[in-house]
Amino acid sequence: MHKIGIDLGSSYTKGVIVNKKNEILDFYAVRTGFDFNKAATKILDKFSENYKFSSPVFTCGYGREQLNIPFIANSEIIALAKAVYHIYKCKCSVIDIGGQDTKYIKITDNGQVDKFKMNRKCAAGTGSFIEEIAFRLDITAKEFNQFAEEATEVFQINSFCTVFAVSEIIGRIKQGTSIQNLILGIYNSVIDRCIELSIIEDKLIITGGIPDSHPKIVKLFRDKFPSAESPEKSQFLAAFGCVLLNS
Amino acid sequence: MHKIGIDLGSSYTKGVIVNKKNEILDFYAVRTGFDFNKAATKILDKFSENYKFSSPVFTCGYGREQLNIPFIANSEIIALAKAVYHIYKCKCSVIDIGGQDTKYIKITDNGQVDKFKMNRKCAAGTGSFIEEIAFRLDITAKEFNQFAEEATEVFQINSFCTVFAVSEIIGRIKQGTSIQNLILGIYNSVIDRCIELSIIEDKLIITGGIPDSHPKIVKLFRDKFPSAESPEKSQFLAAFGCVLLNS
Repeated sequence: MHKIGIDLGSSYTKGVIVNKKNEILDFYAVRTGFDFNKAATKILDKFSENYKFSSPVFTCGYGREQLNIPFIANSEIIALAKAVYHIYKCKCSVIDIGGQDTKYIKITDNGQVDKFKMNRKCAAGTGSFIEEIAFRLDITAKEFNQFAEEATEVFQINSFCTVFAVSEIIGRIKQGTSIQNLILGIYNSVIDRCIELSIIEDKLIITGGIPDSHPKIVKLFRDKFPSAESPEKSQFLAAFGCVLLNS
Repeated sequence: MHKIGIDLGSSYTKGVIVNKKNEILDFYAVRTGFDFNKAATKILDKFSENYKFSSPVFTCGYGREQLNIPFIANSEIIALAKAVYHIYKCKCSVIDIGGQDTKYIKITDNGQVDKFKMNRKCAAGTGSFIEEIAFRLDITAKEFNQFAEEATEVFQINSFCTVFAVSEIIGRIKQGTSIQNLILGIYNSVIDRCIELSIIEDKLIITGGIPDSHPKIVKLFRDKFPSAESPEKSQFLAAFGCVLLNS
C-alpha cells in the first residue's frame, strides 16, 4: 500500500503519495486557510481518486496535529533534512523559504541535523514579503519572476520591514523607477534576510514554496553560492521526508 | 510677523502658525505622499488664506530639507522635546507614536534631551500597524477606537510582525472572535512594542498622530502608567517645537 505524507504549513498544505520503493507517485498542494483538517482532507480526496493508501498518514508542519484522521506527527525540520539527504547524500546547508517562515538547517555528512535556525517572527525574508508586494501590484508569481528576469540592474530596497517596503516600492514606481529593477531588488532583499540566518559554508540546497514559484531566486543564490541547487517541486520535500522517516 | 513650523513626516506633514507670544494660531496636516515640497506648499497655502508669516519656515522630520523655499531645518527629537518641556516644564519621558516610527525621549528637569531611542525599522509598534489592520477591515480610526472602547476583554495577538498579525486577526474574525476584543488586543500590542523601547520611570507624555486619532491608547497607557498624559493635538508638537527653537 502507498503511504501519504502531509506538510501542514501556515500558508499551504502540501501532500505526497509514495510507493514502497520510496518513489513519489503524485503530489498536491492547497491553500491551508483556517482549517487544517479540511486542507488535509482535500489532499486525501484528491489522492483517493487514483490510489489506495495506508493509514495513518504522516504529518509535519504547523498544523501537524490538527487532523481528525489517524496520523503520526513529525518535526518538519527533521523531515525536510531527511528528504534533502535522501536526494543529495552529502553534508549540506538547507535554506527553506516558506510562506510565513524561513529555516536554515545544517546537515552532517551522515544525514543528521547538526543545527537549525528559524525566522517566523518577521515577514521580511519569507514568502509573505513577496506575496504582499505581488498582491499590491496585482501581479502573479510568474509575472513577478519574469519581471526580475528582465531587470537591467538591482534597485536597493531600503526598508527592512515588509510594510514599509511596500510603501517604498509603490512610491518608487510612481516616481518612475523600473518595476523590473525593483522586483530584482525585492528578491535580493529576501536573499539577504535568508543568509543572515547563518554563515553558509557547505553546499547550499534551497527548498520551499518560494524557489518553486520564483526560480529566479535560485539563480540569484547561485550568483553568491555557486554550489546552490534547488530540487524540483521542493515545496513537497518535508511531506516526502515524513514518509521516509516512517519507512 | 507670525512664524511657521512644519514637521515633514513619512506619513503626514504637520504645520503650525505661531504668533510672537509663542501661541499657536492655527494648525493643519496633510498626507505627505511622495513630494515633501508639495505637502509643505499645501500647508503654506492654507495658512496664507488668513495670515501673513515670515520667511524662512522652520522644519523638522524626514523631509525637513526637501523644500524649495527658504527653511531652517531642525532635529525632530530636539523640537519635540522643546515643545513638551514648554508645556509641562518638568522631567519626563516622551513616547511619540507616528505613522512609520516610534520614538522614546527622556527629558531632564531643565528641558535637555537626556537620551532617545527610535524604531523605524519595523512597523510593529508604529501607526502603520494600526493603519494596515484598519485598511484590511475597512474601518476608520474613529470606528477602530470605538470598537476598543466596547471590548469586554483583551484578545492576545500572538504575531509580532504586522503582516502576520493581519492574517491572524482576519482568521480570528472568521472563527468568530469579537472584533472589539481583537482591536483592544491590537492597541495593547502597539503599547507593548512602545514600552520595550526603554524603562519608563518619569512622568510619561504620549505624543504623535496615533494618540490624537486613537485616544483609547492614551487611556490604556494610563492603566500602566497613572501619570501618563497626552496634550491635545499632540501630532503638531514637533512642528511647534521648531518655532520655539528659533524664537
